Amino acid sequence: MSQPSLLAIPLGGLGEFGMNMLALRYGDDMIVVDAGMMFPEAELLGVDIVIPDIAYLKQHRHILRGIILTHGHEDHIGALPYILPELNVPVYGTEFTLALVTKRLEEHGLLEQTVLREAHPGKTVEIGPFEIEFIYVTHSTMDCTALAIRTPLGVVIHTGDFKMDPTPTDLRPFDLHAFAEYGQEGVLALFSDSTNVERAGYTPSERAVWQRIEELCRAAPKRIVVSCFATSIHRIQQIIDIAHLVGRKVAFVGRSMVSNTEIAHSLGRLRIPDGLLVRPQDVKTFDPKRLLALVSGSQAEPMSALSRVAVDNHRNLSVDENDTVILSARIIPGNEKQIFRMIDHMFRRRALVYYDDGGRAPLHVSGHASQEELKLILNLVRPKYFIPIHGEYRQLFRHAALAHQVGSVAEQIFVLESGQPIEFTSEGAFKREPVNAGRVLVDSGSLEEIQDVVVRDRRHLSEDGVLVPILAIDKHTGRIESSEIVTRGFLPTDDGHVVVNGAREVMRKTVEASNPEEKGDWTVMREKIRVDLKRYLNKQTSKRPLILPVILEV
Amino acid sequence: MSQPSLLAIPLGGLGEFGMNMLALRYGDDMIVVDAGMMFPEAELLGVDIVIPDIAYLKQHRHILRGIILTHGHEDHIGALPYILPELNVPVYGTEFTLALVTKRLEEHGLLEQTVLREAHPGKTVEIGPFEIEFIYVTHSTMDCTALAIRTPLGVVIHTGDFKMDPTPTDLRPFDLHAFAEYGQEGVLALFSDSTNVERAGYTPSERAVWQRIEELCRAAPKRIVVSCFATSIHRIQQIIDIAHLVGRKVAFVGRSMVSNTEIAHSLGRLRIPDGLLVRPQDVKTFDPKRLLALVSGSQAEPMSALSRVAVDNHRNLSVDENDTVILSARIIPGNEKQIFRMIDHMFRRRALVYYDDGGRAPLHVSGHASQEELKLILNLVRPKYFIPIHGEYRQLFRHAALAHQVGSVAEQIFVLESGQPIEFTSEGAFKREPVNAGRVLVDSGSLEEIQDVVVRDRRHLSEDGVLVPILAIDKHTGRIESSEIVTRGFLPTDDGHVVVNGAREVMRKTVEASNPEEKGDWTVMREKIRVDLKRYLNKQTSKRPLILPVILEV
Repeated sequence: MSQPSLLAIPLGGLGEFGMNMLALRYGDDMIVVDAGMMFPEAELLGVDIVIPDIAYLKQHRHILRGIILTHGHEDHIGALPYILPELNVPVYGTEFTLALVTKRLEEHGLLEQTVLREAHPGKTVEIGPFEIEFIYVTHSTMDCTALAIRTPLGVVIHTGDFKMDPTPTDLRPFDLHAFAEYGQEGVLALFSDSTNVERAGYTPSERAVWQRIEELCRAAPKRIVVSCFATSIHRIQQIIDIAHLVGRKVAFVGRSMVSNTEIAHSLGRLRIPDGLLVRPQDVKTFDPKRLLALVSGSQAEPMSALSRVAVDNHRNLSVDENDTVILSARIIPGNEKQIFRMIDHMFRRRALVYYDDGGRAPLHVSGHASQEELKLILNLVRPKYFIPIHGEYRQLFRHAALAHQVGSVAEQIFVLESGQPIEFTSEGAFKREPVNAGRVLVDSGSLEEIQDVVVRDRRHLSEDGVLVPILAIDKHTGRIESSEIVTRGFLPTDDGHVVVNGAREVMRKTVEASNPEEKGDWTVMREKIRVDLKRYLNKQTSKRPLILPVILEV
Repeated sequence: MSQPSLLAIPLGGLGEFGMNMLALRYGDDMIVVDAGMMFPEAELLGVDIVIPDIAYLKQHRHILRGIILTHGHEDHIGALPYILPELNVPVYGTEFTLALVTKRLEEHGLLEQTVLREAHPGKTVEIGPFEIEFIYVTHSTMDCTALAIRTPLGVVIHTGDFKMDPTPTDLRPFDLHAFAEYGQEGVLALFSDSTNVERAGYTPSERAVWQRIEELCRAAPKRIVVSCFATSIHRIQQIIDIAHLVGRKVAFVGRSMVSNTEIAHSLGRLRIPDGLLVRPQDVKTFDPKRLLALVSGSQAEPMSALSRVAVDNHRNLSVDENDTVILSARIIPGNEKQIFRMIDHMFRRRALVYYDDGGRAPLHVSGHASQEELKLILNLVRPKYFIPIHGEYRQLFRHAALAHQVGSVAEQIFVLESGQPIEFTSEGAFKREPVNAGRVLVDSGSLEEIQDVVVRDRRHLSEDGVLVPILAIDKHTGRIESSEIVTRGFLPTDDGHVVVNGAREVMRKTVEASNPEEKGDWTVMREKIRVDLKRYLNKQTSKRPLILPVILEV
């Protein structure tokens, strides 16, 4: 480069939902903001999670100085365990964010080799030519930040995920003043969250859910089961406070709910009155009228705690007649069918099920800024250049249109997609040649247990092999009527039939161990069969074929 | 039966969305209300549509007197071509309903052997011991009816699908008086539509969409593309009227849009001003500022007209910069991802895309009754027994709860699921032993072309065989990086490899003939590959293996 210039390279999250990642490069120094994952769509059979392709980062490994995390949601930190072994650079983030990362790295045996550097909202960190201020913002999890990144070419602001909650439950306000000051000083470029750009008005405060949840808890005739995202510590705090207020004890159920509340509590960031907690193993026998269970699995993920509870297949908790079930979470588009199937299971048990159906006071509020908040940030920051981030194409496009309407962007608005770099020089801002970017599919073991991980290179499909178990299950009796196992390219020819017969036996046992409602739910059965077969095949053959179960109903 | 009694046997649509079907039996006479289909969920790979299991009807074929249709939507008539060959009884319905049925039966070569009997709202039809009045109701398609079925045990009212539109676009009012009179006389049982039971208030009138669509059409700088359901004749009429008003010609694009508007027009039920229509083949060259295209495929079904238009793969129509695209249809849950992917394609082309995002005046209104309308029907009819129909379990349950709250049901409310009969006698109403009911999966050829049809018996899986094409497509170049074809149980051993090689060639051509955006969309590619392979394999082997394409991205 003849002239000094700043390159911004979006590697994920622009033109797609999730796996957020943005690289910033000035001369021979590069940093990365966030390293997120996304959950695979139903079409992506046989895959657990999806992460950004980091070919570009590996190529520039020698100038990469660190990964900066805005907050601890999976779509911002979830790729770390898969990319750190290849990059191994220091990771910066706030206290709670790093606590979540620590847990994840521990599970993957990566903690010792990773340098974690705690950042503090309102304070700055220097990395090469970058001086980074962490700015406190309100969002649906704790310790969330925007970033003001001072570079030789000017200040870049990255909002992270945010909303402007005027009455946060922990009384810690969104740092309006920091944004105002940078706006006053002059900002080169603003990268801002587009998730809720389609929503008019203001996103309601986190407090908006208190009233109805309290009402439902006061009215509940028997046990109360509440499900929310396990990272929503503010929500969890409110539910604990409500339980305490109405005289109920609290039990945490589900791996992520137990783990995240433990982390927040150990940091002194979740207040749990003494004697309030009931141990999971005591839930079954505890007086239902005095109990509230906080359960993870609000998206009805196959094999999550709430999914199991709904079909009476959980060790410690079930839902029975007149129990109250409150879903205090968004129904993420794409998950409706499985969520409503779970809700149906609970209604069939005559539970009183409450979920956001657009009526009355909300049971859930979003953590992302709506149009008026997005306009406010644009007016506060009034950048020279504006680039919408975190959204599918239509959301980025509409965020750009919103910015045009506001009129506070001095120079130019760019709609970029992942892989499309933009270069800032003293002459202006310019789109550059696209770099390699895309999705990498990860087969990481089941959601419930972390095993050793294979970042699968699909090019080696024929080496790893493919196994397609096809099961016909009689919908009335729940029995396997016929089963086929179709394989290609991974079985030794001599004892192949032994392995296939064994696999058939594994499937038979998996089906037998499932209850009728699970058998009627292909999503659940496919996932159970996939996980059990993966374990069996890995043990028998030391290989990891791609497993694509097909369930038929006869 | 010692005592005369009336049996109602739900065979579809209770506890599931779609494929509505209810049998009514008195002594040795039976009728069936509706014969619907449902679209398969994504998990049901290799299947085109799903219809109810009619084992019970076949078993009682000798006493089955007719099929009564409430209206012409697919979830009420779609199973007819697949069940009529096995039942062959007269079909009753209103003019437009029978016109749609006629078209369908023609395509399946079943028209000549089927007796169709036109019914008229306000008039009755006698079938054995049943005297059936067709009652006019408002809904999103034309000629919709509820049924009042007089039996020796009392009157049964079946609402069909309805809303109470106070200002229908064709000025033909919902027949409140018929419901009132039956309520006055006394009604044994009410079976009522539960689709919108989760919505508070009243469903807006069909007219509610006019204002914003007119505004957008007046403001449109270039071509206008509007998509709605092809059966929504009232909507189509409004859009035609708006086009005429703002000085634009109209073109119908897409198989179902062309076919349904032709039918409605030929019946004199769709008013099209002389000279307003532009032929599809003239669309490309027609002045964009004077054109409005009405296109089917609002749910972004793979290979539908609008899906093709969105990626510039349609013969007659494309979407370019500053064209206006209006989605005047519901985004059906489960379809969001594919619909938003389609919308993104159009935004990338810099089209002005409008869809219902909860803001301002609606671009679409529902055809189903909300809570206040459901309460009104309950108060008008005040039946002895009430059975919610048309809904997943939670919707039936909530409709039952709503009826409890209204308090106008004299005796009892039953939440039934498909296969659960209820018997009405002079002593009361009683649940009886469940009968065989469930889903039958139909592999019917592509959505675009009707071929000969196989109602697949999944029990014979191993006879038909299975073919799993696995394709790894390079996401950057769009080239096939590797392909595997895994088969079981349908290929002759001697020339099996010839067929497999041919199949590989078919896949290669299918991928080559697709444009980059299609290649990036697995749902589309899977469907294209499935259809092309099905045609090829049927030709080569005269067999119809189950085809389960798997697309991988490398």
